[in-house]
Amino acid sequence: MSAPASQPFASRGTKADIENGLSFQPKFDGDGLIPAIVTDASTGEVLMFAFMNAHALKLSIDTGIAHFWSRSRAALWKKGEESGNFLNIVEMRTDCDQDVIWVRVDVAGDGRACHTGERSCFYRVIKSSSDADEAAALTVAADACRHD
Amino acid sequence: MSAPASQPFASRGTKADIENGLSFQPKFDGDGLIPAIVTDASTGEVLMFAFMNAHALKLSIDTGIAHFWSRSRAALWKKGEESGNFLNIVEMRTDCDQDVIWVRVDVAGDGRACHTGERSCFYRVIKSSSDADEAAALTVAADACRHD
Repeated sequence: MSAPASQPFASRGTKADIENGLSFQPKFDGDGLIPAIVTDASTGEVLMFAFMNAHALKLSIDTGIAHFWSRSRAALWKKGEESGNFLNIVEMRTDCDQDVIWVRVDVAGDGRACHTGERSCFYRVIKSSSDADEAAALTVAADACRHD
Repeated sequence: MSAPASQPFASRGTKADIENGLSFQPKFDGDGLIPAIVTDASTGEVLMFAFMNAHALKLSIDTGIAHFWSRSRAALWKKGEESGNFLNIVEMRTDCDQDVIWVRVDVAGDGRACHTGERSCFYRVIKSSSDADEAAALTVAADACRHD
């Protein structure tokens, strides 16, 4: 009998297995989710951050298109399904503890990964405490998209 | 009276405030934590992923050195305190929802951000399902450090 679709990955092994091994043993949190960092494969820019459940992770690996779990909608989320801006996966990595996924992508469609219309969700910079003007704690990043 | 050290940031406003405003209104989860993505400011490589509580976030902004909250030790964690590999912050950003932090850093010391001795925690690639050799689900990334 095959493993249920929600748990298609290997069980967690020892610390050494997890850190040094070549068996993929992703760790999902108490809600069954693993954090996923999405970067632009060409520029390295962080585009967005979301969570995957086991099903979304498996679909991402199998299809080469990033899938997530939408916590607000409590549903599988194929990013780009409405906008056409699918995230085509160039490479996926995991970290030492195998509890985070890094997804390097090419953004399809008009290349905007953020629902606001920005290319990246990270279009604002947090000012340092030494910045003279304390009236605002954020600035718009120089590389943010322009909405003409 | 000043705000307590654990809550030095502005309260959450409307969706429009959060997405378009220049007031920093970070959202902490039920455990008082916010995810933090750390990338190399020069190469764009994702180095590590961790969580900050409000205190760690404030210290990161005020000192220019990345601080986190260690969930395993349940303690403030100034990354590099043991290794000397402090993370000197070049820029911090937040995302559209203001519930994630992106920290661009220069790694001090010998430049290795991962406790395993790798430069980045993400030293292994997840194989795609189309890879012929299914014996292992991960490969060591070509850019992983060599331990001579």
